[in-house]
Formats: sequence, C-alpha cells, structure tokens
Amino acid sequence: MTISMYSASVPVFKQMLSALSDVLAKAEAHATEKKIDPSVFLQSRLFPDMFPLTRQVQIAADFAKSVPSRLAEIEVPAYEDSEQNFAELQARIKKTIALLDGFSAAQIDGKEGLEVVLRPGTPKERKLNGQAFLLHYGLPQFFFHVTTAYNILRHNGVEIGKLDFMGAR
Amino acid sequence: MTISMYSASVPVFKQMLSALSDVLAKAEAHATEKKIDPSVFLQSRLFPDMFPLTRQVQIAADFAKSVPSRLAEIEVPAYEDSEQNFAELQARIKKTIALLDGFSAAQIDGKEGLEVVLRPGTPKERKLNGQAFLLHYGLPQFFFHVTTAYNILRHNGVEIGKLDFMGAR
Repeated sequence: MTISMYSASVPVFKQMLSALSDVLAKAEAHATEKKIDPSVFLQSRLFPDMFPLTRQVQIAADFAKSVPSRLAEIEVPAYEDSEQNFAELQARIKKTIALLDGFSAAQIDGKEGLEVVLRPGTPKERKLNGQAFLLHYGLPQFFFHVTTAYNILRHNGVEIGKLDFMGAR
Repeated sequence: MTISMYSASVPVFKQMLSALSDVLAKAEAHATEKKIDPSVFLQSRLFPDMFPLTRQVQIAADFAKSVPSRLAEIEVPAYEDSEQNFAELQARIKKTIALLDGFSAAQIDGKEGLEVVLRPGTPKERKLNGQAFLLHYGLPQFFFHVTTAYNILRHNGVEIGKLDFMGAR
C-alpha cells in the first residue's frame, strides 16, 4: 500500500460522505422523535450570511464529485441543487458515493502534475497542479463543508459525536 | 512533484495553521474594536458539551504536531494546555509551525505501512497503518478542529470568510 492521488482522494471522500449520511439520518430521527419540522434543521445556519445545512451538504457532495472527476479528466456530473428534504439529500450523497465507487486508481493516480484551472476566464482564475488542487484546495474545502454540516446539527442539539463525524472504516 | 506521506501532511497542516493564526488575529482585532472581552470568544462554544474556542485551537495544534511526529517516529512534544489568551494561542500555533518546518521529507516519506497504535492499552485501542492514520484519522480530526474554531468565531459575528479559512499558499 502506497499513498497515491487516488488513495488520498476517493476513499477519503467516501469515508466522510458515508459518515455525513449517518449524521443526517440521526438528525432526521431526532426531528421525528422531538416533533421538530425537519426544515428547521435543513434551513439552519450558524450565522445569517452562512449557508444553511442543505447547501452545506450539497457543496460537500460537489467537492466529492468534482475533485476526483477533474483529476480523472472526465466531465463533472451536474447536479440540480433542488433537494428539499432529508431523503433527497441522502439520495445526493448516495449518488455521489456511487460515482466515487466508479473511479479506478488508474484514472487518478499519477495526476500530480495535471494543470487544474479554477474559475477559468474570471478575474479569480487560479491555476494549480493536481497535487495542490487535491491537498491544498479540494480536501480543505470538502472538510470545511462536512464539518460545518455537523456543527449546524450539533448546535441545534442533535445527539451526535466525533465518532459519527469520523465514520467507520 | 509526487504525492508522498510528507507532502500530504506537513505542508497541509502548515497551510491550515497559518490560516487559523490569521483568523484568530482577526477575531482579536474584532474584539478590540467592538470592546468585547476576548475571553468571550475564547470561551465560546457551539453547544454546551462541545469544546470552546481555546480547546479547539489547542487540539488542532495537537494533531498538527502529533501526526507528523508519530509518522517520523519521534517523541510527540508535550504542550501544557495552559493558554489563557489570544497571544498564547498564537504562540502555540507558532511553536507548532516551527516544529513542522523542522521535519524533512525523508523522515515521513515511506511510512505508509508503519504501525500506529491509537490509545494503546485501553479498551479503545486501535491499530492503523501510517497511511490510514494520516488520511482517515489525522487529517479528518485536524480539519474538524480548525473548521470548528472558524465556525465558533463566525457564529459570533467575526468578519471572516472562506478565503481566511483556506489561507494563502
């Protein structure tokens, strides 16, 4: 076993998305048990100009699909961002995990030097190589959103802990 | 440039700790400007049984020092956890970054198969190889605490954004 672009991406995204799925399931069960409208959780945010839970989950899935897709040089699958409830967020995660399962190591390994252009054609355009794109951009962004989704639910009293965040492997 | 255990650890920890230092500097400036007692931020938490800001920063530094140290098979430097203010948290981060700067790639590269034992001798003992320890345990834990530190400050109205979280590189 040797670290590679594949091993540092696909299995990590998969671990954390699976954990996020379980965290969301606990949140939904908590809402049912306490007779809380699930949309209260879905629309909750830590500050008025931060994204609510639904958007945090959407963006986490977006990084999990786009980072390996760009490294594999395949088109990034488009998602509609139309999720309205926990079931639809779970479907988005499930779809993303299925996509991750479809990548082979051969598609992603060796892409350290691939040129990745962020926000091409805009004033914020930025060029990174594949390794920096994964380690210094994609993973930090992804972890930001899975952690913030967890923190929103924790802040709202859902009984979850670090083990739920980390997930099983 | 090829991905390696060193490149997936030391520079990532350094990027995020440097960003955390800047985030904390903005929080301290915000407290000064708004005449907020800094300890209000330092003791703030997202939920009563979550750790406050000070502890989140301490733990983030702990993972940044312990993960590379264990991979390098050197003793993990002990910190006292006695920080009482922003300046002392900044000193802890600075000390950790200096430690990170002291690692050579040769100390950490090739440690994918190293046996790492978490909580040895306890009922929660868990054995991981070096690669899983870094990718599936150390980095997720580290990112959890840097993100939660950011979220605590964001939740308290400090004017920081994603760029502050990500840091410059």
